[in-house]
Amino acid sequence: MQPITVVTICLCLAMSIEAQRPKPCASPPLLEGALSVMDAKFVQVVSGIFSYDGLGQKFRIRENVSVAGSSFALDTLFLFREHIQYKIFYQNQTCVRSPLDTRFRPLEVPPDAQFLTQMVVGGSSQPGEGVLGNQWTGKIPETKGTYYTLVSEFGCLPLSDLYYDAHGLWITTFYDLITGIRDPNVFIPPSFCDKGISLEAL
Amino acid sequence: MQPITVVTICLCLAMSIEAQRPKPCASPPLLEGALSVMDAKFVQVVSGIFSYDGLGQKFRIRENVSVAGSSFALDTLFLFREHIQYKIFYQNQTCVRSPLDTRFRPLEVPPDAQFLTQMVVGGSSQPGEGVLGNQWTGKIPETKGTYYTLVSEFGCLPLSDLYYDAHGLWITTFYDLITGIRDPNVFIPPSFCDKGISLEAL
Repeated sequence: MQPITVVTICLCLAMSIEAQRPKPCASPPLLEGALSVMDAKFVQVVSGIFSYDGLGQKFRIRENVSVAGSSFALDTLFLFREHIQYKIFYQNQTCVRSPLDTRFRPLEVPPDAQFLTQMVVGGSSQPGEGVLGNQWTGKIPETKGTYYTLVSEFGCLPLSDLYYDAHGLWITTFYDLITGIRDPNVFIPPSFCDKGISLEAL
Repeated sequence: MQPITVVTICLCLAMSIEAQRPKPCASPPLLEGALSVMDAKFVQVVSGIFSYDGLGQKFRIRENVSVAGSSFALDTLFLFREHIQYKIFYQNQTCVRSPLDTRFRPLEVPPDAQFLTQMVVGGSSQPGEGVLGNQWTGKIPETKGTYYTLVSEFGCLPLSDLYYDAHGLWITTFYDLITGIRDPNVFIPPSFCDKGISLEAL
């Protein structure tokens, strides 16, 4: 066999392997679902339903937070492009508006993430028994934190996420995800936020 | 409408609702896959591959245990019917055989478990984006522990499990599950276990 033929075959094989390797991906830009977050010592547990608009950089979460035995509800709208967040209290029709200086992070596997493994949550012997996912890891430069994220092979939906930095460790699991936003009004502060807004100091 | 007709309709509706409600179920009797276990303070993390024989009451697990920064490998065969467990060390061809007084617990949702909710791990907008599961809770009388278990709607495969009692809290996740046993020899102690077995004291 000619050396050039061998080189061509090797190159084709390498390209074929590269093509089969999962690629970093972005989750759907409009997404709704539920999530739960636990910190390392199970002191704080959050469960909530969220709406995510990756195009408009908006995020709304209605969550139930349990901290050391007691729990409270929170309803927060994050408008990253406007650098504003609203804490909304329907029970007494009030809002707390405050500046938002956190950078928007899209739901995605960042391009510099490192592929770890492919795994099936559940099983693969019969249809419907599991979901195929890809696990990735990487660093967040701003926080010097490390993440391990698992996204579905089909649809690039977030399944679970483990993150740790100097402040602690958090595990997030995602479920009941649907693509699209059922009610776009979810990203508009309710009318009672127009009057009597209290601006939190930075 | 005659009262008897109303009663019949109500009864039919109640039966229909009951028929739609998920039922406690048993996982496949022969199952292989991977699992990871974390304790509440992330002091101990176990990841391993297991083979489960619910008919013969046998369980084999090759695991990697990380405790407070250091890690070690373990290969254990549990023969519940024979009340024996083998710790197998291939690297120096030795075994430690010891009595096993733990009761066999099949992989199942016990009949007295309480149904909590149905949820999709991942999403449901497109095929392959998620897996439909049923969450159950209950008590283990012997340990006075509480469990929250999530099993797939199709196949009754274990997906995740949260358990706590007076000794702590553990989270187990299951993945890469297949029904059946690839190699039945996995439940037979290797030949070097026949000679020089050291019996651990009770």
